[in-house]
Amino acid sequence: MQGQQQQAYDRGITIFSPDGRLYQVEYAREAVKRGTASIGIRTAGGVVLAVDKRIRSSLMERTSVEKIHKADDHIGIASAGHVADARQLIDFARRNAQINRLRYGEPIGIETLTKDVTDHIQQYTQVGGARPFGVALIIGGIENGEPRLYETDPSGTPYEWKALAVGADRKEIEDYLEENYDEEMELESGIELALRALAEANEGKLRPESIGMATIPTETAEFTPISDDELDGYLSEFDLLAEEDEGDEESDE
Amino acid sequence: MQGQQQQAYDRGITIFSPDGRLYQVEYAREAVKRGTASIGIRTAGGVVLAVDKRIRSSLMERTSVEKIHKADDHIGIASAGHVADARQLIDFARRNAQINRLRYGEPIGIETLTKDVTDHIQQYTQVGGARPFGVALIIGGIENGEPRLYETDPSGTPYEWKALAVGADRKEIEDYLEENYDEEMELESGIELALRALAEANEGKLRPESIGMATIPTETAEFTPISDDELDGYLSEFDLLAEEDEGDEESDE
Amino acid sequence: MQGQQQQAYDRGITIFSPDGRLYQVEYAREAVKRGTASIGIRTAGGVVLAVDKRIRSSLMERTSVEKIHKADDHIGIASAGHVADARQLIDFARRNAQINRLRYGEPIGIETLTKDVTDHIQQYTQVGGARPFGVALIIGGIENGEPRLYETDPSGTPYEWKALAVGADRKEIEDYLEENYDEEMELESGIELALRALAEANEGKLRPESIGMATIPTETAEFTPISDDELDGYLSEFDLLAEEDEGDEESDE
Amino acid sequence: MQGQQQQAYDRGITIFSPDGRLYQVEYAREAVKRGTASIGIRTAGGVVLAVDKRIRSSLMERTSVEKIHKADDHIGIASAGHVADARQLIDFARRNAQINRLRYGEPIGIETLTKDVTDHIQQYTQVGGARPFGVALIIGGIENGEPRLYETDPSGTPYEWKALAVGADRKEIEDYLEENYDEEMELESGIELALRALAEANEGKLRPESIGMATIPTETAEFTPISDDELDGYLSEFDLLAEEDEGDEESDE
Amino acid sequence: MQGQQQQAYDRGITIFSPDGRLYQVEYAREAVKRGTASIGIRTAGGVVLAVDKRIRSSLMERTSVEKIHKADDHIGIASAGHVADARQLIDFARRNAQINRLRYGEPIGIETLTKDVTDHIQQYTQVGGARPFGVALIIGGIENGEPRLYETDPSGTPYEWKALAVGADRKEIEDYLEENYDEEMELESGIELALRALAEANEGKLRPESIGMATIPTETAEFTPISDDELDGYLSEFDLLAEEDEGDEESDE
Amino acid sequence: MQGQQQQAYDRGITIFSPDGRLYQVEYAREAVKRGTASIGIRTAGGVVLAVDKRIRSSLMERTSVEKIHKADDHIGIASAGHVADARQLIDFARRNAQINRLRYGEPIGIETLTKDVTDHIQQYTQVGGARPFGVALIIGGIENGEPRLYETDPSGTPYEWKALAVGADRKEIEDYLEENYDEEMELESGIELALRALAEANEGKLRPESIGMATIPTETAEFTPISDDELDGYLSEFDLLAEEDEGDEESDE
Amino acid sequence: MQGQQQQAYDRGITIFSPDGRLYQVEYAREAVKRGTASIGIRTAGGVVLAVDKRIRSSLMERTSVEKIHKADDHIGIASAGHVADARQLIDFARRNAQINRLRYGEPIGIETLTKDVTDHIQQYTQVGGARPFGVALIIGGIENGEPRLYETDPSGTPYEWKALAVGADRKEIEDYLEENYDEEMELESGIELALRALAEANEGKLRPESIGMATIPTETAEFTPISDDELDGYLSEFDLLAEEDEGDEESDE
Repeated sequence: MQGQQQQAYDRGITIFSPDGRLYQVEYAREAVKRGTASIGIRTAGGVVLAVDKRIRSSLMERTSVEKIHKADDHIGIASAGHVADARQLIDFARRNAQINRLRYGEPIGIETLTKDVTDHIQQYTQVGGARPFGVALIIGGIENGEPRLYETDPSGTPYEWKALAVGADRKEIEDYLEENYDEEMELESGIELALRALAEANEGKLRPESIGMATIPTETAEFTPISDDELDGYLSEFDLLAEEDEGDEESDE
Repeated sequence: MQGQQQQAYDRGITIFSPDGRLYQVEYAREAVKRGTASIGIRTAGGVVLAVDKRIRSSLMERTSVEKIHKADDHIGIASAGHVADARQLIDFARRNAQINRLRYGEPIGIETLTKDVTDHIQQYTQVGGARPFGVALIIGGIENGEPRLYETDPSGTPYEWKALAVGADRKEIEDYLEENYDEEMELESGIELALRALAEANEGKLRPESIGMATIPTETAEFTPISDDELDGYLSEFDLLAEEDEGDEESDE
Repeated sequence: MQGQQQQAYDRGITIFSPDGRLYQVEYAREAVKRGTASIGIRTAGGVVLAVDKRIRSSLMERTSVEKIHKADDHIGIASAGHVADARQLIDFARRNAQINRLRYGEPIGIETLTKDVTDHIQQYTQVGGARPFGVALIIGGIENGEPRLYETDPSGTPYEWKALAVGADRKEIEDYLEENYDEEMELESGIELALRALAEANEGKLRPESIGMATIPTETAEFTPISDDELDGYLSEFDLLAEEDEGDEESDE
Repeated sequence: MQGQQQQAYDRGITIFSPDGRLYQVEYAREAVKRGTASIGIRTAGGVVLAVDKRIRSSLMERTSVEKIHKADDHIGIASAGHVADARQLIDFARRNAQINRLRYGEPIGIETLTKDVTDHIQQYTQVGGARPFGVALIIGGIENGEPRLYETDPSGTPYEWKALAVGADRKEIEDYLEENYDEEMELESGIELALRALAEANEGKLRPESIGMATIPTETAEFTPISDDELDGYLSEFDLLAEEDEGDEESDE
Repeated sequence: MQGQQQQAYDRGITIFSPDGRLYQVEYAREAVKRGTASIGIRTAGGVVLAVDKRIRSSLMERTSVEKIHKADDHIGIASAGHVADARQLIDFARRNAQINRLRYGEPIGIETLTKDVTDHIQQYTQVGGARPFGVALIIGGIENGEPRLYETDPSGTPYEWKALAVGADRKEIEDYLEENYDEEMELESGIELALRALAEANEGKLRPESIGMATIPTETAEFTPISDDELDGYLSEFDLLAEEDEGDEESDE
Repeated sequence: MQGQQQQAYDRGITIFSPDGRLYQVEYAREAVKRGTASIGIRTAGGVVLAVDKRIRSSLMERTSVEKIHKADDHIGIASAGHVADARQLIDFARRNAQINRLRYGEPIGIETLTKDVTDHIQQYTQVGGARPFGVALIIGGIENGEPRLYETDPSGTPYEWKALAVGADRKEIEDYLEENYDEEMELESGIELALRALAEANEGKLRPESIGMATIPTETAEFTPISDDELDGYLSEFDLLAEEDEGDEESDE
Repeated sequence: MQGQQQQAYDRGITIFSPDGRLYQVEYAREAVKRGTASIGIRTAGGVVLAVDKRIRSSLMERTSVEKIHKADDHIGIASAGHVADARQLIDFARRNAQINRLRYGEPIGIETLTKDVTDHIQQYTQVGGARPFGVALIIGGIENGEPRLYETDPSGTPYEWKALAVGADRKEIEDYLEENYDEEMELESGIELALRALAEANEGKLRPESIGMATIPTETAEFTPISDDELDGYLSEFDLLAEEDEGDEESDE
């Protein structure tokens, strides 16, 4: 389909093309690919979330590039794509998690929360007057003692994964994950796999300050950020520590 | 009708073309065809729902590719097309089923529920400010001890069927069903027919993990998912079990 | 008027063309012609409604192709055109009939009901934000012991008829009706006329399963569906019974 | 002004063209011309309304082609143009007449009612989101013992007339009226003038079944339909009775 | 600026062109010029309003071509341009005048009323969803014993005048007024000036039936229509009486 | 940027161009330039407002060309550009000034009032469904015994000035002001400077009737219009009095 | 991407381009670059805000070019880009800060306030009917005894910085800051760094009247404007004082 015809589907609201596609949703997926990669891995010992945080400048506070968020005590969310859109969805998720605690006196289920979010996303792809969300989320947490890991995409479809990547280099990272994933592995091995997978898309080496990581261990069911020191330790241990040099340009915006 | 003229009907809301067609509805039907096939079969012993679930990656949880849903104790719904749209309609159906139980103290009729859904769909094809739903549903269940099987299409028309397919390869599968369907057959034969019909569109063989199946037996009037083990058993029994190899690309999105 | 100029009237809401026409309404009339034929005949003995129901597949339940509806005890409605639109109007008619009984304790008049429906239709041709209804209705019933027969068209104009056809082959069928109609005939003769007229547009023969029929006799003032067996009897009696062969493609959608 | 430029004014809402015209209103006037003629004549003895009712088929009930309406006991309205639009305005007029009786305990004035209607029409030519009304009305009645006769046009302008025609052949009929009108004539002469004027546009002869007529006599101030028999009598008396032959195609829609 | 570019400003709402103009307002001014002339003259003895009323047909009631309106006891309004729009503004003016009497127990000021009207007009030039008013008003009356004379134009700007014309031939009539106006003249001289100015644009002669006139004398502060007989007297006196012949085509619509 | 591309930004609401400009706001600034000049000067002795009032006709009341308005006892506003828009903003300013007195029992601050107005203006440049205001205001007054002078532009930005001009010839007049302004000068010198600056843009001479002037002296803090006689005196004194001849065409509309 | 295609994304609301970009947001970023530079620096001793205020004319009051605002006692905000938009966001920030004090009896957190603002900004990039904000803010303040420094950009993304620049010459100034920033420096050194960085983009010299500066010292947590005299002192001390000459054209509008 060429430029001119495509144009027709960009102007108004999100509508079907003659071959049954929703271009605005597909373009929103492109917005996700423009963001740096985020990874989620489910292990027997809990969920690992890891993100690539390329910082534009050494003067920027690394912590303000938020790609991993605590949605509730037992739930973490990693995002890729349009950062401001991600914030909206994460606020939505937090409110829903909080309401669930208030109403039912118990933590919200991971699948329930995911579907609340995807239903919200879907509305923006069908009803006029707004554009779709240009972001994909990885929602991980512990439900009834079991680790769970979900993806939300810009169409509003929920998927459950053992391990996945969203954002730039998704294909390369998922290939690596498919080859190396083992459902039985411990949390520690999940951390290693996540870092090695991220390194795959970064010429084999990583700097702790350009990574974000958190786990939700099955045992504690508590969202647990990994500190820079810990990250430094892991990278050394796995021989993934990069020399000090300039990062590249790709960044979430 | 050529590209340029067609364009005119794509931009605004859903309106009639000079020959009396609603292009956005026809494009939504194309969205249905982009989804993998779903099948419904009504037998004397109950309703069979079977779906083709092609999984993008071995790391994706097969159960999260939801194409068969329990709408109420006695009703199952299979879908083909835009997954996020399907979720909206299924939530709508569930709410209506629940309200019926609360208000009248009895299970909702299959036809009643289907028409609630199609009336809802129709609104999105006539009133501006939203696009049609890009999904077809197969709604099956037991009403007054009788199995019933319906289809909803993107125009909002309800159809009752003895057996039908929606989504990719609809024509091929319906041809197979027409040839082999027998109104008097038992539930077990319905399961066999459903699997054989699905296999028709998959070069004759199936893998249990790329299939979803549920029945609503006349006797119990209970939505009953078929487990992977059972599926494996059926496929072996009917000599439909595929060798382990890569699936193809088609998937619901 | 050529393609390009016509285009101008298709995009926005329903507006007048330079020669004073409403294209969206005319296109909606084309949608009516795309549907199979429906017939209404008023006799001294009551109203006859007959419809052509071409079924896409032998697996489809014939009864689910609804083209004749009971709107109230004493009123039947046959439709041609966009099925999902017809359902909206028939629900609208039913609600109005019900409200009339509740409010005034008596059955609604046929003309009153027709005009309620056409006023509703007209709104969709004048106020923006929605398309016109792509359906024509034949509304027949008994009012004060007299049979009455009306048509609603997509512009929202009500017409009263002695006998009429809407949908495909309207012209041919109405020619036949004009030649053969007799205002004094009994209900039975009306049934014969309706079937012969339908046969005119079907190469002279009919199959009972591709026909729907109902009467509202003057005496009982009760909507009375004609069963398949009765239909089979009529077709044999009038020598209109078709051999078993494949139907053609035209169908309501 | 050529095709392309004109197009610009057709798309959106009713707006001014560079030469200060409102095209949608002018096109609505074309819709009026597409309808058959309606005539109003004011005599000392009362108001005469007469309409040309070309019936599409002998099976259509002539009375259902409504072009003369009783708006209140003392007021009749004849229309030309889009029938469904006319119905909206006549309902609006009836409601206003009724409210006037309820509120003030007396019949509404003819001029008051006309201006209520034209103000309503004007709104549809200025505020977006709807098209103008494609209909002209002739409103006639008795006010304080005096016959009054008004026209409403699609721009929402009220005009008072001694005698007028709207719809097809307006010019020819008005020429005839101007030549033959006499303000002092009695009601009977008004009836003759109306029929002769209609005949002018029908090759000199009329059939009673293709005419509608009503009077509002000054004396009774009661809307009084003229029956077919009376019409037949008048036509014979004035030597205007047509031989039985086919009517032409023009009809209100 | 050529056709194509101008088009851009016609489609949507009233917006600025690159050179800071509001085309829809300018086109509305063209609509004013399409109407016949109206004149206002302020004399020491009161305000004179005079209008050119070309009647389309001898059967039309001259009084129904309303171009001079009584807005309150002490205020008259003459209009030029789109008649139906004028009616809206005059109703708006009447309501405001009435509210003022109710609220403050005194007649509304002429300037106050004018500015109420122009503020209302301005809204239609700035806020989307409606077109500007295609009419200019001359508002004249007595305030605190002083005659006042105002104009409202389609942009919503109020102007105060000693004497002015709006509508067709504005330039010619205003030239005549500028030459012959004398601020100290009596009401009678104002009447003469108004008629002579109107005659200027009518080849020097006038017919009483194609003129409308009213005064609001300073002394009485009462809106006073001039009767046909009086007009005939004035025209004879000033030697402006036309021979009986056909009027030209221009008319307000 | 050429015609065609610019067009794109004119159609819809006020949106950014690729180089970060808001065309509708810039076009509104052109509307300001189309108006005659207005000047504001702040002196130790108070604020001077002076405006160029070119009158279209000798019959127009000069006082009705309002370019200087009293917003509150201590505040005057001069405008340039679209007169009807100016009236809206001045009404808005007056209401806000009045509310301030009612609520806090004290006169509103000049800066506070200016920012109320500019915030109101900004809304019309960001939210869809309306065009920006095509007018610039000079707001001058006394606050806590200090003269203050502000400008509002069509973007909604407030500026404080010692002396400024808006409207036609802004550049020339501001150049003159920059050369000749002295912050310490008395009110009388401010009046002279204002008149000399206006004369700069009028070939060195002025007529009292084409000027408007008002002061808000620091001492009295009372808005004080300058009468025609006073103006005549000033012009003679400063040798700026024009011979009687025709004015040019530029006028505010 | 060329002119024509880009056009498509400019017309309607903010939607995705085929490569996943939001053009209206990117154009809003261009609007930021059109404004003069603003700088924020976080030191151990507090936050420094410095802005480049190019004044169009010597008659404009320098203080009215507001680029540094006090949002609450402990928070300052510097802006770059569209001034009228900045005012909206700063009002929004002030209201939120005030509400926080009322509700919780304590000063709002800097990060909390920043995210309130960015969530507000994001809405304008996703929901139709308005354009994005064309402004970037630097929000600095003291929270729990710690200096914090944030940026909001037109997409609605919050960033935390040690030191940053927004507006014209961002790249050059940030390069200078990266080279010379030291996290441990005192407030005084932060002031020096800010002035030297501004000078980098102004050919090495600055005039006090074209600079604005404020600090929020860690110790006092009070927004503290730097007076012109202090500025003059700093510039002399750092040998940055410019000779008196004309400023260049760039200004915020």
